[in-house]
Amino acid sequence: MDQITIHPIGIIHSPYREIKGIPIQGVFNDEVEARVELQEEYAGGLKDLDGFSHAILIYCFNRSQREDIRGRPFLEPQEHGIFAIRSPHRPNHIGLSVVKIKSIEGRFMHFTEVDVLDGTPLLDIKPYVKYFDSRENVVSGWIDKHFAGGTVPGRTVIR
Amino acid sequence: MDQITIHPIGIIHSPYREIKGIPIQGVFNDEVEARVELQEEYAGGLKDLDGFSHAILIYCFNRSQREDIRGRPFLEPQEHGIFAIRSPHRPNHIGLSVVKIKSIEGRFMHFTEVDVLDGTPLLDIKPYVKYFDSRENVVSGWIDKHFAGGTVPGRTVIR
Repeated sequence: MDQITIHPIGIIHSPYREIKGIPIQGVFNDEVEARVELQEEYAGGLKDLDGFSHAILIYCFNRSQREDIRGRPFLEPQEHGIFAIRSPHRPNHIGLSVVKIKSIEGRFMHFTEVDVLDGTPLLDIKPYVKYFDSRENVVSGWIDKHFAGGTVPGRTVIR
Repeated sequence: MDQITIHPIGIIHSPYREIKGIPIQGVFNDEVEARVELQEEYAGGLKDLDGFSHAILIYCFNRSQREDIRGRPFLEPQEHGIFAIRSPHRPNHIGLSVVKIKSIEGRFMHFTEVDVLDGTPLLDIKPYVKYFDSRENVVSGWIDKHFAGGTVPGRTVIR
């Protein structure tokens, strides 16, 4: 099939300069703050996003150099299909994070619930809409056992 | 910034051949069924995805010919920033849908909660993980008033 050319619309600035220490998902640490810096031409696209509590960031896992078909997640040593884990080493290297919006000023969006490396190229921002994006009666496959009984697993930070 | 080259990993087959009649989000119609057809080389990536009830599809809005900075959503005539709406006419034309997995057979994933046009190029599949992707205390900006009192708006199908 044909190739598709896309381009960063901005950059994500985060305190995480390396993979070690980063939460496996941002929801496990709501104290760290990061920001999106959009290119000037896209600043107008943020209008009214400040009415939303959360946003979906879509970005490029630009530090990954490989595209695996299977991989081992951080939570356990078992191997799973790449589409059953959230590994960066995936076809097209597209990342997705739900983040909590703190404020929007000009072409900057400040947010918490960060799990993105500093300098990550941003591809899109979508408003998180509970009616579309939240689901009830969700079964989360091999991941559920790590959260059994409502506990958060000890290993939510990459070592 | 640099351009990034990506490629479809498969195609989405859906009964929606044109925009008219499609739900504004798939969650509003769980009877229609569609399927992902992965390229053969990616079939192994589906291993263990069948343990999940939902998946996130990331795809290309390939029928859009423009990148707007602001736009009018289907639910109301007011204009909003492109990052505060889910319009296809957005920078990079990246679409995202949460869908319900029905079954996986070989390189095919059958699903419901469909809001994607037939022939849409697929870029990625991620497992929907309630601990990462569902949020409580969500405020959904200009959209909340259309769902006030727990009602679903009359206009959930594109006319």
